[in-house]
Formats: sequence, structure tokens, C-alpha cells
Amino acid sequence: MEIIREASELLIKIKENRPLIHHITNYVTINDCANVVLAVGGSPIMANDPAEVSEVVAMAKALVLNIGTPNNNNFQSMLLAGKKAKEMSIPIVFDPVGAGATSFRKEMCSRLLEDVRPDVIKGNISEIMYLANVDGCYYGVDSLQDIDNAAGIVQQLAKNLNCIVAATGRRDFVSDGSTSYVINNGHDMLSKVTGTGCMTSSLIGAFCSVTTDYLKGAVAGIMTMGISGQLANACLLSDEGIGMFKVRLFDNIYNLNKETFIREGAVYAG
Amino acid sequence: MEIIREASELLIKIKENRPLIHHITNYVTINDCANVVLAVGGSPIMANDPAEVSEVVAMAKALVLNIGTPNNNNFQSMLLAGKKAKEMSIPIVFDPVGAGATSFRKEMCSRLLEDVRPDVIKGNISEIMYLANVDGCYYGVDSLQDIDNAAGIVQQLAKNLNCIVAATGRRDFVSDGSTSYVINNGHDMLSKVTGTGCMTSSLIGAFCSVTTDYLKGAVAGIMTMGISGQLANACLLSDEGIGMFKVRLFDNIYNLNKETFIREGAVYAG
Amino acid sequence: MEIIREASELLIKIKENRPLIHHITNYVTINDCANVVLAVGGSPIMANDPAEVSEVVAMAKALVLNIGTPNNNNFQSMLLAGKKAKEMSIPIVFDPVGAGATSFRKEMCSRLLEDVRPDVIKGNISEIMYLANVDGCYYGVDSLQDIDNAAGIVQQLAKNLNCIVAATGRRDFVSDGSTSYVINNGHDMLSKVTGTGCMTSSLIGAFCSVTTDYLKGAVAGIMTMGISGQLANACLLSDEGIGMFKVRLFDNIYNLNKETFIREGAVYAG
Repeated sequence: MEIIREASELLIKIKENRPLIHHITNYVTINDCANVVLAVGGSPIMANDPAEVSEVVAMAKALVLNIGTPNNNNFQSMLLAGKKAKEMSIPIVFDPVGAGATSFRKEMCSRLLEDVRPDVIKGNISEIMYLANVDGCYYGVDSLQDIDNAAGIVQQLAKNLNCIVAATGRRDFVSDGSTSYVINNGHDMLSKVTGTGCMTSSLIGAFCSVTTDYLKGAVAGIMTMGISGQLANACLLSDEGIGMFKVRLFDNIYNLNKETFIREGAVYAG
Repeated sequence: MEIIREASELLIKIKENRPLIHHITNYVTINDCANVVLAVGGSPIMANDPAEVSEVVAMAKALVLNIGTPNNNNFQSMLLAGKKAKEMSIPIVFDPVGAGATSFRKEMCSRLLEDVRPDVIKGNISEIMYLANVDGCYYGVDSLQDIDNAAGIVQQLAKNLNCIVAATGRRDFVSDGSTSYVINNGHDMLSKVTGTGCMTSSLIGAFCSVTTDYLKGAVAGIMTMGISGQLANACLLSDEGIGMFKVRLFDNIYNLNKETFIREGAVYAG
Repeated sequence: MEIIREASELLIKIKENRPLIHHITNYVTINDCANVVLAVGGSPIMANDPAEVSEVVAMAKALVLNIGTPNNNNFQSMLLAGKKAKEMSIPIVFDPVGAGATSFRKEMCSRLLEDVRPDVIKGNISEIMYLANVDGCYYGVDSLQDIDNAAGIVQQLAKNLNCIVAATGRRDFVSDGSTSYVINNGHDMLSKVTGTGCMTSSLIGAFCSVTTDYLKGAVAGIMTMGISGQLANACLLSDEGIGMFKVRLFDNIYNLNKETFIREGAVYAG
């Protein structure tokens, strides 16, 4: 598909421009998110205090917000940083980790959707379902449910919020409300390592920082994680597991090039 | 021993049930703790703010408390989460990292023992000795001292606190106050990687979440780390060190099965 | 050079004494900093709350301060810990991550230089240039600029602040204000992994904890990272990248010995 070739060109642009990607994120996967931005060719910065986030956003080319370990301090930082990012017209990627799981996360989601208005929302199916107000049984932060109507929910939510919405799972659904894609890259091992979802949001931030077409940026970020996960799994030996898989995942993201992107990409009209 | 076979069956139960294990833990090893829960087959969640911990505990099958980087915020969260866990009768595992090292940790230990009353306490020998009010020279958070009377101290503390107590070191001692075990699995390399103690507590949380016999759960968690450490070391090449050891540790936990558990387990009556 | 041989002897002293190295550092690379101290033979402790840092410093042999994710809490902790470290005459290593990037970091740098008076300051060229009040375009936290006059700036800043100053980059410059060294170890891959700068400061802390000659300790710490980076890169296969590089980096630090130190060391009079 044309979008695969276009997405592969964004990869080159990241490596040329080395965009600074500002994260306000959780304490669990913060190191992995910084390394994944470096692996794809960007430059990460992870400041999370209200005292300085606006100034940090002012230097950045994209902002990634992740509520994996929420507290009032990083909530305030997200509101301040989001406001500044809007003023600067840099893309804001929102990862609603555990959306709906607690009152506090519900409140954060509402406020961030309303006040910050992210350009891209990337969650797993159950998080996106919560945002879409669809009934669903919340289970953990790694839950993946194959919902029959996932594509429709994603498209409708994108339309309602006037932004890009991506729901990841066995298949990934991405939509801007009118154009939609299904991505068939990825491997089940990605769900056995913490942070692959958070890292995908970081990758989306990196890709969106070098294009104004955030739909394409979201597709490219998800493809990068999916393709690298497949390749990482393919080179695992039989006595290896999630330790070596994670090492190979970073290796493959680091070595990803245009040709691999085009050869392995599995993106379809949604 | 019978307990080895029984412990190996808990491993299967974790993989079948994928229990959600809630951690309130330190910033240093939080990523490793999440990954070790995934490696053994569970599902981790690491929320640590008073605003939401009670709601998170309400979804969980076990609670792991670790005071490696204490502050007032996570202290309050531990008290709230502990209370909720008691109401729900899910197991609480307490890792008193650096117990006795500072006044603040002393206060946390006292309050947590008194108000939260953990079901399992897992520390290194010097931490357990502090809790037991035995004189000992505190040294670092990785200290391992081979105390002649470790088995006796562990059993007495378990009796006094009416819970499971485990002291890890060259040999590991576990007791419920009447039945006691010594575990001879493990390898010295485990003390060269930060977080293997914290990860052991996470594993205990995962095992205790699928049984009401917390003595067995504690033994199974410690065995899992010990056996995987031995196997990880056995496959290291001569020019490899703690980098590859940590990778192989996760690989071996991920690939651990009933047969390996039974073949490698070294548990004796204490 | 004589200093290479002397530095190699400090490595033996670390392994013999297992010094406790206290860090107040950022959330991004805190796990790597703990592991690098273990890899080189020391014992890490990472307490960061004002309630306990003074007591933790009282047990430590060196203090490492890193402002990578600054907030008011760790700022207060740094001031308290720094004061205690001065009383105890243990070395204080300061890593001014992102110095000059925000008002808050500017304030922290000023206060820490004035009130804590670190014994060693280690930053990248642009951070050191900010501290030296030289005009420079701030870019990210991984920026490396080859400044013609780096050696002169480093020496002058060391003289002005009466401490050791080290600026890392393609070449590293270290000075006490009169004696200066240039270090030609290292590899470009080190800039592709987050935290190698922070880890270098941790290594400097470990080396300075076993000598009163902090210039030598700073050189030894930088050499350790540089040599291990070179060796890690040398054993990478063509399909490997930053994932395996990081693993090999830890392996090489762990296995570093006197002979390798002397064989690979590239230190020159500055």
C-alpha cells in the first residue's frame, strides 16, 4: 500500500532530524521509552515536574502523555505541557494506560481529552472502549480483547474527538474518523514484555514529529513496533524467552530501514 | 520433597489464571518487577498514588509492598492498599528493603507490621534480623550474611508475627513458625544484579495469589528465582557478565516448567 | 601514561572494598546506575527523600547527584545530602543533566554549586559550557558538540570552582584547574543508549570513593565507560544494535580488569 512506502520515508526523516520528543510518562517503562526514541533516531527528554515542563515542551517536536502511574504532580504537568504544545502546534500523543480502571484515571482522561485535546490517542482495545463509553470488562493494563466491532468503535471515536485514534491488539486499528487502516504486524511476544504499548506511543510521537499527517505517523509508529516484534521473535532460539526477545526488539528497531519496512509492512484499508 | 512437586503445580496455575499482581514498590527495580510477573505468567500493575491504590487493589489477586525508595506518598499508599487487601483477603507480601537503615524505614516497618500485618515478609538476612530485633551491623541493601542461627530467627519471627517469614542469602530460610524449609537453589550472580530480591518478592506475590497456602507460595517464589539464576549462570559464556546474566535470568523464568522445577529444586526441612 | 596504571589500581580497590555509593538521581536511568555500580564492584543505594537522605549519606562512601528529572523533593534531598556529605568529607559527584535548559535546572545548578560545592562535575560539553557561562545552543540532553576550546573551558571552570570538571563527548576533557587530561576512549554507540552519561557519573562516584585523588577517580570512571563501550561495540554482530550493545556494555564493565584497562586506556596530557 502507498501508506507503507510513505511511512518508511518518515523513518528516514526521523534519522535526519533527530527530533526531541518530550515525555510525561510512568515510572515503570520510562527507560524503555527513552531508549526506543533513541533506537528509531530521535532524542528523548523525560521531564515531569510542573516547574519546568512548559519550558521543555518549548524545545520539543512532539509531546507524549502516558498515565501509567498517575499522580497529581504529573497530572498538573500534563495539563501545562499540553497547553504549551497546543500553542506551539506540535503533536500530542496520549496513551490512556488503564483508562477506566480507577476514578482518578477517569478524571485524568476526561480532563486531558477536554483541555489538552490530543492529536493521537493510542490505547489497547479495552482502554479505547472505555473512552468510547462502550461497556467492557476492564482487566489489567495489558488486556487485549478481540472485539468484533473494534474498527467501528475506533473510527467513531476518532470522528467524535476529531483526532487520530489507534487501538492495538492482535490486529491494530487506526482511524482519523474517515480513513481507517488495519495493521496485521506484531507478535504475541510483545504482550509478554512490559512497556511495548508505552514504547509504541513514543514511536508514534517520533513519527508524528516529522509530518503533519498524524494518521500516517500513527500507522508508522505501530508498524515499527509490530515489524520489529516479528523480526525479534523470528531470531529467538528455543531456549530463549522474554529477556532475549526484548534485546532483539531494540536491535531490530535500531536496524529498521526503508526496505524492511516495505517488505514486512502489513497494512490494509479498514 | 512433596513441597517441590506442589510448588511446581502453582506455576501451572499462574499461567492458567494470569493473576493481576499489584505493586507499590521502588523506582529502581519497578520495570524488572513488572517483567518478572509477566515472565512467570501473571499480569502486573504498579499504581502507587493514594488517590487510586484502593481501587487498584480491588482488582488484584495479591499486593506486593516494597520500601526500597520510601517517601510519604508511597507510605500512605501502602497503608491504604494494605487495608483494602485485608478486607479482600488477598495475600500481602512485604519486602522491607533496607529495614533499620534509617528512622523513616524503621517507622514504615513498624506501621506496616502493625497496621497492614503482611501475610509474607521476605528480606535478606540483615533485614529480617532487624525486624527480629537482633543486633546486627547494617550494610547496604544487598547485604547477605551467613548467620549461624538464621533458621531459628526466621522461625521465631514467623511465630511472633503469625505470618510467613523468608530470609534470603546463600541459603534461604522460610517458615510459618512451625514448619520450616531451607532452600539451596540460587547462584552468587543473583547478588550482582540489582532487583533480584525485589523480583523474588514479586514472584512470591504471584505464587501466593493462586493458593491459600502462603508458605508453599513463598517457597515456590524463592525457588523460581533460585533455579532460574542457576540455569542463567550455567549458560553464560566466559566473556559474558551481569548484562547477559540478567537476560538469561528472564529467559529462564519465562521458560520454567514443572519438570525443571522438580529436577532442580533443592528444598529441605528446616 | 602513569595515570592509566594508577587508575587501574583503583578498580581493584573498588572490588576489594565494595563501597556504598548513594545516588539521588533521575527516574529514567536509576536502574542502570544501580547496576553499573554493582558491575564495577561497588554497592548502590538510591534513597531520594528528604526524610532519610542524611542518614543514608552517613553510611555511604560517595554521593552522586543527578538532575535528570528534577523536582522540589529531590532538590531538597540533594541539598540535605550534600551538606551531610561535606561534613563527612566523602566525595560528591554532580551530573548537571540538561543544565541551562530550564529555569528550574538553572536554579538547581546555582544552588548546588554554591551550597553543596561538588568535588567532581561531569557533564556533556554543552552542559559544562552552560556552567561556564559560555554562549551555546542548548539541544537535548544527549548533545555532544565538538568545541574547539573545550579543553580550555574545562580547565578554567575547574579553576574557578576549585573542583574537578569533566566534559564528555567524542573526546573527554578532565581537569583540576592545573593538571588536565584528554581521554580518547569511547564509541559513538554510547550516545545511542540512554543513561551512559549518568552511569559514567556513577562510575566516577565509585572510583572517587576509594581515593582522595578525585582527578584520578574521574579519569578512571570515564575510562571505564569508554573502554567498555569500545569492547561492547567490537563484539556486536551485524544484525545487532543498541539492545545487545547495552548487554555487552554491562558484561564488559563487569569483566574489566587491570590488564584490559592498561591495554586499552587512551589518556593524554591535556
